[in-house]
Amino acid sequence: MSELKNDRFLKALLREPVDVTPVWMMRQAGRYLPEYKATRAKAGSFMDLCMNPELACEVTIQPLERFPLDAAILFSDILTIPDAMGLQLRFAEGEGPIFDKPVRTEADVNNLFVPDPEGELKYVMDAVRTIRRELNGRVPLIGFSGSPWTLATYMVEGSSSKEYSKVKGMLFDRPDLMHKLLDTTAKAVIQYLNAQIAAGAQAVQIFDTWGGILTPRDYKEFSLNYMQQIIDGLTREADGRKVPVILFTKGGGQWLEAMADTGADALGIDWTCDIGKARERVGDRVALQGNMDPTVLYANPDRIREEVGTILESYGQGSGHIFNLGHGIHQHVDPEHAGAFIKAVHELSPKYHV
Amino acid sequence: MSELKNDRFLKALLREPVDVTPVWMMRQAGRYLPEYKATRAKAGSFMDLCMNPELACEVTIQPLERFPLDAAILFSDILTIPDAMGLQLRFAEGEGPIFDKPVRTEADVNNLFVPDPEGELKYVMDAVRTIRRELNGRVPLIGFSGSPWTLATYMVEGSSSKEYSKVKGMLFDRPDLMHKLLDTTAKAVIQYLNAQIAAGAQAVQIFDTWGGILTPRDYKEFSLNYMQQIIDGLTREADGRKVPVILFTKGGGQWLEAMADTGADALGIDWTCDIGKARERVGDRVALQGNMDPTVLYANPDRIREEVGTILESYGQGSGHIFNLGHGIHQHVDPEHAGAFIKAVHELSPKYHV
Repeated sequence: MSELKNDRFLKALLREPVDVTPVWMMRQAGRYLPEYKATRAKAGSFMDLCMNPELACEVTIQPLERFPLDAAILFSDILTIPDAMGLQLRFAEGEGPIFDKPVRTEADVNNLFVPDPEGELKYVMDAVRTIRRELNGRVPLIGFSGSPWTLATYMVEGSSSKEYSKVKGMLFDRPDLMHKLLDTTAKAVIQYLNAQIAAGAQAVQIFDTWGGILTPRDYKEFSLNYMQQIIDGLTREADGRKVPVILFTKGGGQWLEAMADTGADALGIDWTCDIGKARERVGDRVALQGNMDPTVLYANPDRIREEVGTILESYGQGSGHIFNLGHGIHQHVDPEHAGAFIKAVHELSPKYHV
Repeated sequence: MSELKNDRFLKALLREPVDVTPVWMMRQAGRYLPEYKATRAKAGSFMDLCMNPELACEVTIQPLERFPLDAAILFSDILTIPDAMGLQLRFAEGEGPIFDKPVRTEADVNNLFVPDPEGELKYVMDAVRTIRRELNGRVPLIGFSGSPWTLATYMVEGSSSKEYSKVKGMLFDRPDLMHKLLDTTAKAVIQYLNAQIAAGAQAVQIFDTWGGILTPRDYKEFSLNYMQQIIDGLTREADGRKVPVILFTKGGGQWLEAMADTGADALGIDWTCDIGKARERVGDRVALQGNMDPTVLYANPDRIREEVGTILESYGQGSGHIFNLGHGIHQHVDPEHAGAFIKAVHELSPKYHV
């Protein structure tokens, strides 16, 4: 493996000194980029793109060609694991993900299994290997997975949901079944992320997109508990370097202390948290990743720069901050605004690292 | 006016002793009730129902005929004010509210005006008067309004939204315009709620459904600030009795201290807060209303009862708790489950009031 030329992302995750605050954007390889849309059109469906390692590599690297980002993230979907379990994922235009075989009954739960990361999910590992080779040490590569609870919401609902009546129905009425589903899924995530690390991922992020719809008690029992199992089960070192783990629960601002207790290296936070107050709460136990409201990117570049400045000032002096949006970049954002955002982070942050 | 027979709701809002914890449900007059659907079919469109005081009264009282609820809430919509401002509200089947004339430009904002509560909005006041007469002192009647920020999201987007790109675009790019919009809307809400109080509302709730999508700084500047203006402008007494104000920001769990500083009598909280911890944070400054996850009503009655018990225990001894869901009751809930919920609150709560 070639030497890493820009390691400020990995250093900041471990709260080691850096020159400037590193920055990347969730969903940075995505529909706001015309070059992404061109590759996507070439690939066919969204899943065709995910399953083609060469094209997945191409779109992963596209934002790095435009912007001086400090990390690349594997282009893939959070629902690859349940698809590999046989739930038959497809994307209906304008409707989001659909599983043709959702998990509704005890038999459905019993049929779930841990997919082989180098079998059913080999296309993901091939993408990691391809990207890592093509990156050639330019920046670190982030691997990722959905959290077990987040995967469960799609697996049980069978699609995106507004009310989550089916998945919460199972949680409240048959907690035993829900635990079994989550347990199998957590085991699958452990193998999946460890395989990504073996294939070359230099950090991993667990996306808990839907942990924030739970009560504090249920969040701990049904989401955090399984993320804890994953963190405990991960290979935390590769190539003689620590592989940091980032935990991101959208809407998890009330639970940062409990999240920090998991042993994650960093917490992703959304924009409803004040990052300075979040830092006071978690102390020096974890780094923080975030947290600009993605809709700020609809504003003019001066306003974007002002917001970046406010967040940097709120986090304050020293390492341990990875700049990001509080959620994925929206598809209708002007790429030049994304560029202004990244530039502002690099230009305004050096004074916090002296 | 006839004497109030059941005043435990009003007493609990003022943290005065009660015999049992009072309970009502947001959206208790709604589509989960077959009798509601029958009246709705008779009325025509949803707005036809809102604009017909006799039928609005009928559906307001329907849940009280089924369940021993401790309060009634005016049947109306949160978007009556912008409709009265000329934005032309309609409801597309399965799509939610649509404004045919959304607010997008400086001219649009300048055209906004404060509607006359006994003019364009007289149908709402007529409904309040009719309901109050028909209730005949059975339980108190709650009036309500959307918060200025929440109204602004619909006024600018023109419909429900997932990304809020238009309203946040205005907030970030033209904060002056957004403030002007919010200022006019806040003045309208003050007149609207005061007219409801004059017409017979015995408590009022401000629904800030979308305050939780803002950063802490923007929440204070663009949502809380205007709710503060409203609270300062309200008539707080009628019929020789205090008219309590309830402030409900969905997703506002991180900001309870600031919300309590407004001088509201009670805060509505959603299920992502632990109500016991929330009580510790706000002390004896405000009562708390909430906070069962509405999806618990999909579970079996035993499980519903268990969850009610957990929340009562978490709040603990003494008055100042109004039991409610953390958001409106879902349309697919079995009415018998709603009944089990209300029964459980009344049966399990006396020991916290000895």
